[in-house]
Amino acid sequence: MTYCVGLRLNRGLLFMSDTRTNAGVDNISTFRKMQTWQGEGRFLTLLSSGNLATTQAVVSHLEERTKAAEDRSPSILEQPSMFQAALTVGECLRETIARQKGEGQKAASTTPFNATLILGGQIEPGPPRLFLIYPEGNFIEASDDTPFFQIGETKYGRPILVRAYDPDMSFEAAIKLLLVSFDSTIKANLSVGLPLDLLTYEADSYAPGEERRIEADDPYFAQVSEGWGEALKNALESLPDFVLD
Amino acid sequence: MTYCVGLRLNRGLLFMSDTRTNAGVDNISTFRKMQTWQGEGRFLTLLSSGNLATTQAVVSHLEERTKAAEDRSPSILEQPSMFQAALTVGECLRETIARQKGEGQKAASTTPFNATLILGGQIEPGPPRLFLIYPEGNFIEASDDTPFFQIGETKYGRPILVRAYDPDMSFEAAIKLLLVSFDSTIKANLSVGLPLDLLTYEADSYAPGEERRIEADDPYFAQVSEGWGEALKNALESLPDFVLD
Repeated sequence: MTYCVGLRLNRGLLFMSDTRTNAGVDNISTFRKMQTWQGEGRFLTLLSSGNLATTQAVVSHLEERTKAAEDRSPSILEQPSMFQAALTVGECLRETIARQKGEGQKAASTTPFNATLILGGQIEPGPPRLFLIYPEGNFIEASDDTPFFQIGETKYGRPILVRAYDPDMSFEAAIKLLLVSFDSTIKANLSVGLPLDLLTYEADSYAPGEERRIEADDPYFAQVSEGWGEALKNALESLPDFVLD
Repeated sequence: MTYCVGLRLNRGLLFMSDTRTNAGVDNISTFRKMQTWQGEGRFLTLLSSGNLATTQAVVSHLEERTKAAEDRSPSILEQPSMFQAALTVGECLRETIARQKGEGQKAASTTPFNATLILGGQIEPGPPRLFLIYPEGNFIEASDDTPFFQIGETKYGRPILVRAYDPDMSFEAAIKLLLVSFDSTIKANLSVGLPLDLLTYEADSYAPGEERRIEADDPYFAQVSEGWGEALKNALESLPDFVLD
């Protein structure tokens, strides 16, 4: 499985992804699930969950790796808007899945070749935008009502996001929030695992901000993971107990 | 869907279940998913998730409703031990699913007639015991390592249980913990809903303790639900922020 989150903040975008891939529990590997593209007045990030062959093929096609290195001109960097970039990525995803299935589009929702993507970024002169792209190639955009997207194993880490997210958050606080969400997920599902990839994107910067891999022995992650158990117990204690009759 | 939890504490057992059943999102109803049986030196509770026709049939068969009212002598109350009671319930569940399928036991794990049960209670002279019973009729028992069972929509409410459960908890604190777990689930999945049924069982009492239905307008539940958002934010703030380079 996988766990990735893209978060829309007032100051920009925040992305986090795990790196574990598995085929059963006895065949696990580490793969990066976060890709970035940077160009003049544009910066894009793609998070991927689902079939690894599919998501790698999508990225390779977007980077035009079918061509010789000197002829490549990634189409993802030539789109006039984030909406058009999402259309392009969605179309590429849909076609990749259809090709791997070999039978066109029907029953796409149950094919093991499926993948789901989060695309975020900014293309001048538009604002930063965040999309969730489905295996069918269609997509939805984050809004004030739904300011973040999760893909993969989304349930364990969702309650804390729903409760504690605030669009005015600093990147520092939002990273802490995501680490708690990832820690809950990692504790519950073996197929989500460290290291984690972290990326901040500040609005109008058109460049990556903090870009870091959080390894299994990261002292800050350990501090959050250990501290959170205690913090949760204190939070629970701060509420009044039920009164038995 | 459904959300039910059975919790093993040092002082006894605690059960909570929601009451929402649904076939799609446009056909929802309220049904009790918690059944209890009490006899001389014995008290048993059954929580159920899955196909409602299956779980109601299981309960009816356990209560021998195939017989005239005056001839009934519920077999569930005549078992010599909790292990034997779990065997009986599991067998009844397996047969009920097989009968509804009409084709014996194969592919039971994917049949829409499936159900999963939690059975807890105490039969003299044994200690209180808690079992998770699968659609195949087999079962596992709670232990010090895994002191609680969840059935139905288990993921949203799991992290707080994993973090804050303590076998020495009072019933009052454990009820609060379960309400937080249920609140997170209810907020995330429309097919889990209030009212909630709550039951405490004190070891060696052979009788129900607190038995209450928590309605949608319950003031304590509202207090926990509203207070938990704030408590979580405070918990998050109590951890040190990430430090950007």
